[in-house]
Amino acid sequence: MTKTRFLEIRHRTEEICKSLKPEDVSLQPVEFVSPPKWHLAHTTWFFEQFVLSEYKKNYEVFHEKFAYYFNSYYNNVGDKVLRTNRGLMTRPTLKQVLDYRNYVNEQMSEFLSADISTEIENVIEIGLQHEQQHQELLFYDIKYIFGHQPSFPTLDYNITLKPENQSQEFIKIDEGLYDIGHKGEDFCWDNELGRHKVYLNDFEISNRLVTNSEYMEFIEAEGYKDFNLWHAEGWDWVQNHNIEAPMYWHKVNGKWMHYTLQGFKAIEDELPVNHITFYEAFAYAQWKQMRLPTEFEWEVSSEHFKHGQLWEWTNSAYLPYPNYAKADGALGEYNGKFMVNQMVLRGGSVATSPQHCRPTYRNFFHAELRWQFSGIRLAK
Amino acid sequence: MTKTRFLEIRHRTEEICKSLKPEDVSLQPVEFVSPPKWHLAHTTWFFEQFVLSEYKKNYEVFHEKFAYYFNSYYNNVGDKVLRTNRGLMTRPTLKQVLDYRNYVNEQMSEFLSADISTEIENVIEIGLQHEQQHQELLFYDIKYIFGHQPSFPTLDYNITLKPENQSQEFIKIDEGLYDIGHKGEDFCWDNELGRHKVYLNDFEISNRLVTNSEYMEFIEAEGYKDFNLWHAEGWDWVQNHNIEAPMYWHKVNGKWMHYTLQGFKAIEDELPVNHITFYEAFAYAQWKQMRLPTEFEWEVSSEHFKHGQLWEWTNSAYLPYPNYAKADGALGEYNGKFMVNQMVLRGGSVATSPQHCRPTYRNFFHAELRWQFSGIRLAK
Amino acid sequence: MTKTRFLEIRHRTEEICKSLKPEDVSLQPVEFVSPPKWHLAHTTWFFEQFVLSEYKKNYEVFHEKFAYYFNSYYNNVGDKVLRTNRGLMTRPTLKQVLDYRNYVNEQMSEFLSADISTEIENVIEIGLQHEQQHQELLFYDIKYIFGHQPSFPTLDYNITLKPENQSQEFIKIDEGLYDIGHKGEDFCWDNELGRHKVYLNDFEISNRLVTNSEYMEFIEAEGYKDFNLWHAEGWDWVQNHNIEAPMYWHKVNGKWMHYTLQGFKAIEDELPVNHITFYEAFAYAQWKQMRLPTEFEWEVSSEHFKHGQLWEWTNSAYLPYPNYAKADGALGEYNGKFMVNQMVLRGGSVATSPQHCRPTYRNFFHAELRWQFSGIRLAK
Amino acid sequence: MTKTRFLEIRHRTEEICKSLKPEDVSLQPVEFVSPPKWHLAHTTWFFEQFVLSEYKKNYEVFHEKFAYYFNSYYNNVGDKVLRTNRGLMTRPTLKQVLDYRNYVNEQMSEFLSADISTEIENVIEIGLQHEQQHQELLFYDIKYIFGHQPSFPTLDYNITLKPENQSQEFIKIDEGLYDIGHKGEDFCWDNELGRHKVYLNDFEISNRLVTNSEYMEFIEAEGYKDFNLWHAEGWDWVQNHNIEAPMYWHKVNGKWMHYTLQGFKAIEDELPVNHITFYEAFAYAQWKQMRLPTEFEWEVSSEHFKHGQLWEWTNSAYLPYPNYAKADGALGEYNGKFMVNQMVLRGGSVATSPQHCRPTYRNFFHAELRWQFSGIRLAK
Repeated sequence: MTKTRFLEIRHRTEEICKSLKPEDVSLQPVEFVSPPKWHLAHTTWFFEQFVLSEYKKNYEVFHEKFAYYFNSYYNNVGDKVLRTNRGLMTRPTLKQVLDYRNYVNEQMSEFLSADISTEIENVIEIGLQHEQQHQELLFYDIKYIFGHQPSFPTLDYNITLKPENQSQEFIKIDEGLYDIGHKGEDFCWDNELGRHKVYLNDFEISNRLVTNSEYMEFIEAEGYKDFNLWHAEGWDWVQNHNIEAPMYWHKVNGKWMHYTLQGFKAIEDELPVNHITFYEAFAYAQWKQMRLPTEFEWEVSSEHFKHGQLWEWTNSAYLPYPNYAKADGALGEYNGKFMVNQMVLRGGSVATSPQHCRPTYRNFFHAELRWQFSGIRLAK
Repeated sequence: MTKTRFLEIRHRTEEICKSLKPEDVSLQPVEFVSPPKWHLAHTTWFFEQFVLSEYKKNYEVFHEKFAYYFNSYYNNVGDKVLRTNRGLMTRPTLKQVLDYRNYVNEQMSEFLSADISTEIENVIEIGLQHEQQHQELLFYDIKYIFGHQPSFPTLDYNITLKPENQSQEFIKIDEGLYDIGHKGEDFCWDNELGRHKVYLNDFEISNRLVTNSEYMEFIEAEGYKDFNLWHAEGWDWVQNHNIEAPMYWHKVNGKWMHYTLQGFKAIEDELPVNHITFYEAFAYAQWKQMRLPTEFEWEVSSEHFKHGQLWEWTNSAYLPYPNYAKADGALGEYNGKFMVNQMVLRGGSVATSPQHCRPTYRNFFHAELRWQFSGIRLAK
Repeated sequence: MTKTRFLEIRHRTEEICKSLKPEDVSLQPVEFVSPPKWHLAHTTWFFEQFVLSEYKKNYEVFHEKFAYYFNSYYNNVGDKVLRTNRGLMTRPTLKQVLDYRNYVNEQMSEFLSADISTEIENVIEIGLQHEQQHQELLFYDIKYIFGHQPSFPTLDYNITLKPENQSQEFIKIDEGLYDIGHKGEDFCWDNELGRHKVYLNDFEISNRLVTNSEYMEFIEAEGYKDFNLWHAEGWDWVQNHNIEAPMYWHKVNGKWMHYTLQGFKAIEDELPVNHITFYEAFAYAQWKQMRLPTEFEWEVSSEHFKHGQLWEWTNSAYLPYPNYAKADGALGEYNGKFMVNQMVLRGGSVATSPQHCRPTYRNFFHAELRWQFSGIRLAK
Repeated sequence: MTKTRFLEIRHRTEEICKSLKPEDVSLQPVEFVSPPKWHLAHTTWFFEQFVLSEYKKNYEVFHEKFAYYFNSYYNNVGDKVLRTNRGLMTRPTLKQVLDYRNYVNEQMSEFLSADISTEIENVIEIGLQHEQQHQELLFYDIKYIFGHQPSFPTLDYNITLKPENQSQEFIKIDEGLYDIGHKGEDFCWDNELGRHKVYLNDFEISNRLVTNSEYMEFIEAEGYKDFNLWHAEGWDWVQNHNIEAPMYWHKVNGKWMHYTLQGFKAIEDELPVNHITFYEAFAYAQWKQMRLPTEFEWEVSSEHFKHGQLWEWTNSAYLPYPNYAKADGALGEYNGKFMVNQMVLRGGSVATSPQHCRPTYRNFFHAELRWQFSGIRLAK
């Protein structure tokens, strides 16, 4: 654990937020979005709570109430502000929260100058991985906040998709017994363990993601109106919300436009289709008479194709691997308690922090969510 | 219409908001509260839309989209942002909105330097009265926003209640035929007309408001648990929301405290009880074996007692007077369309703008609302 | 109080229900509708609870649990089945409930054979008036249950509207002081007292109700699409529920049809328009550039026109008269607790029981309800 | 396919319903419960729609509207009554529906007297399997309807649980590659195919279900109050619904009682705990520091223990097997479209029809449902 790495990761969070105005940071427009200020503070609270207060001599907390304000789902660490009330806190101000970050960064720098045990190093590593996850959430949440107001503001931090313009091929993988899960000593989340064997049938998987132009064909073929393509729940979702296109798409004068963090613009054909629910990914695959890969198929074949533009929906539910053991104490709340009613996504996205992802990484979202950066890779 | 009066009233709005941070101004925590930024802009839009754009030569709007952002319920003036989406607009920023105010103030000053017709003067007068109403709403909304977050911020603008410590007396008014409604040439809202006769039976009305200590007796006597005191809908409201005290009251270590714009403090016995629904006012009066006055009784007797601390619930529904005629065009949407399912309050409050209220003034709220400054005067 | 009158009124309830199947009687399709079985039992429970159990020597209740099952809103008489759970009781069966009625009728007959005090007679009278109110509700509720299923069953009990085909005239009433409220010794509800003076301006009132063909003109003139005609709440109601016509109206192959208790049929032009909310009545009157009468105007002028086909919405809120005093005990829960957020209707309907209505009778419903028999009389 | 088998299965449905009163059969107390009358008619409609109308010469439908009334989720076969409106149909009556059953049974008997193709036989087989599924749902739905009304009626059709009083042992299964899915020519659902290999680690599985007395220990140890035992969604479910025990359990005078189809009675210690959500099954296993088996572990080990008392929650999500192919046409809507957000249960229950279940049978429910007969088997 170097001080440099710690500060680099921490600094990236502030960089992501640097074009935000104080007006932008307190808002929670919908239950699954958190205010940017909350992300800034919550990631900081992690180090104060689990590192400095525990291990740094004579550490004085920055503000006695911040633990209460900025705890999230860690039920084991006392009271917390309800998720749906996060968006009611206009105070502390952005300035105070940035001061909080600076204070904790300084304290951590001091702390990291001395020797620390492996146990503490592990906690700090989790804190940094946790912060990187919130960096990605910041992109999702800022995009949601900006993309749902009439002035469509832009974010001055560059992350962009590239064309998926290679010609489509299907990679063939042989039937057989494969090892799944994380191997080695590097960091991984508890949900990537234990490493175990999975038997796979023969399968084929696409070398690239589904593009906007391909997805537009599905729309034009009235894919959103054919219940045979959908899960029963997916069909209800389409009907109840009058869904006709991916999130952020708007038809303006007969032409599909969409909101991106660089502004409101015409859709580019060759970019991978983004902001897709599991329901839509499944329906699209049905329409193509193919299917989504399982997370095991994805992991086994991932060395054969490029990935990392968008999280890729798999047809695997988020469940524990054999011999899964959740971590002790509050940090054990991290993953296991979400292992029901969510689907696994693999591969990382342009919004994922550098060095954060790996082929065994298991991301997960509810089937009806799509504010995250998510796309489609076909299998058969 | 003098320029001075115009600017004084406009300036007061900015004064009320001067201790707000940019983080505070974009939030809509509940449907009936509007973000402070919205009040600042909407009151300005009124003058731009109904005065400058109509009557000032070569007027250029400050921003072509602001009419869309900051229109409210004027269905006659094109699209508007839905009331429940007001709290999603982090942009324009507070700075931009204050610039908008300045721009419109300057344009109006210029416009007011020349002669203007009575017709235009009337529209401007309505704009100022409208702004004064929003000034009062600003106090309610800021208090709601500050009073529902854990840090309980304070507002640096002084409005305070005074003790109602005169000994209670009941003023007797004789049965007879009385004139009700506005008389004379001064400004009044359309709902105060037509002036008409009402026959009243003998009645008595208290010379002062119900105080906190009196209301605490009702709480201690378990008034919130005795359905016989309540309207059926009031009882449902109490049950569904577990109501045990007025809004902003919290029992801390066995002692009643409340949030005020000056901070979180112990309740002062002799101040009038505030933030009361119609349901609670009615139940309290039932418990005292008295009743609330009608708005007609209130108007007829109001010269005999002090008022103006809190809006006083009457037992009158908000309905048109005989020969009520709503104004033409968009301004006609102001009052008449609310004349169902609301109750009348009379008398003004410490949050009411100077010179804004008068004895014939008819305020109105839904029976279950209490974020406004509202109290109880008994009759029998 | 004669035994004959008691049994006649009781018998009419059973007559109304005689074409119901056991399948029909347990259902509560919406919160404001009660299952027919519940009406049959609840009206019976009234006599058991307030007469037989109180005053008849050695009376044994028919079933110890029925008081719990069939109490309604009488909070003073112990636990009750929540209004929204009434529709979950498939048992007791219709047969058992009819047996309950017979048992109580026999016991009451026996009881009425002896002398009874005026006090008891008053309670029985209230019980009979109460049963007559439920007779009218039975028509509403059965119509709702039958009118919301695909087979549109009919009721074998004759109540029908007659044409309002007299030519329209407006009756002029002079300004002056009038007496309002019940006079004399006959039965009336507490809400019709105290009799008091009301001053009315000159007004005119129509000699007949608005007809279906007149209302269709409003529909064709796009009255449901012009927000200027509506209360703000009415407009929300229209928008949220996509209202385009009165309840039970369906456009089939370009022609308006409606469900009646005699079946699904074409709309007859000259019948009075029925199943109208207060919002619609108000909007229609606005469109005609007239208004609804107040309940006082209605009462004063009612001797000059025919009424009794449909309850007529007034523009008066349901509020207590001067010197209103609610009855003691459980029977006092009857009226006063509903005196908020409801509008008064006058005049009775074809579904009203014989001899039940009178010119001072004050019916009341929430502005958004229309399953009751309700129409429009214009005033100006 | 013999006529005898057809009629036996059909007759069982009527037998299950024989103690229902007409009042009981039209009610839909909650969205996931269907009225018994609907089950009776819908299973009949299946044969009319997919067999008689298709293949029987000159067949005349019993009633032209019944297809509309009693279709369920078969979007491919035209309009249907919305699931939540099923409980509004008091008509047709129970008598008419039983006549419908008789008519179709007679027509089918006639049809089965002649030779029929394998294709048609397959459709009829699906119709019978479908009817058996509805037989089990009838038990669930009748129990729900009876168990949620104050009189707690009983069902005169005997299905009862037996004690799980064998001493607990854990069966050890070796790691290895196993075949999963249906084998052979007998009927199975599409979701049991394709048969495929699954690699399993060593595991142990209990020889019996968790009993009421064991589950009571969990309750007494405050398992419902310890969020560490629960999925995040499970914890929300517990909090939002104030869950303290399985469905139908009530604490009366300090003693746990429950509603069964034989009446309201004290809980018997050695019976398996029933009416458990997946959330509760998971939390119980966590508390025991064990886990639920996967559906593959269950299938592989099932020959070593008794099962068939209650459906047993597995920790497997309901997903397609490799090479899963849904059937063509309307019958293809049967299973695949539910393969998201549901968990698999295995083993059958006392409410399952004779010969209906088998070790490869995959039942599935949403994690928060528990009106079905569902219990817990531990693994480790």
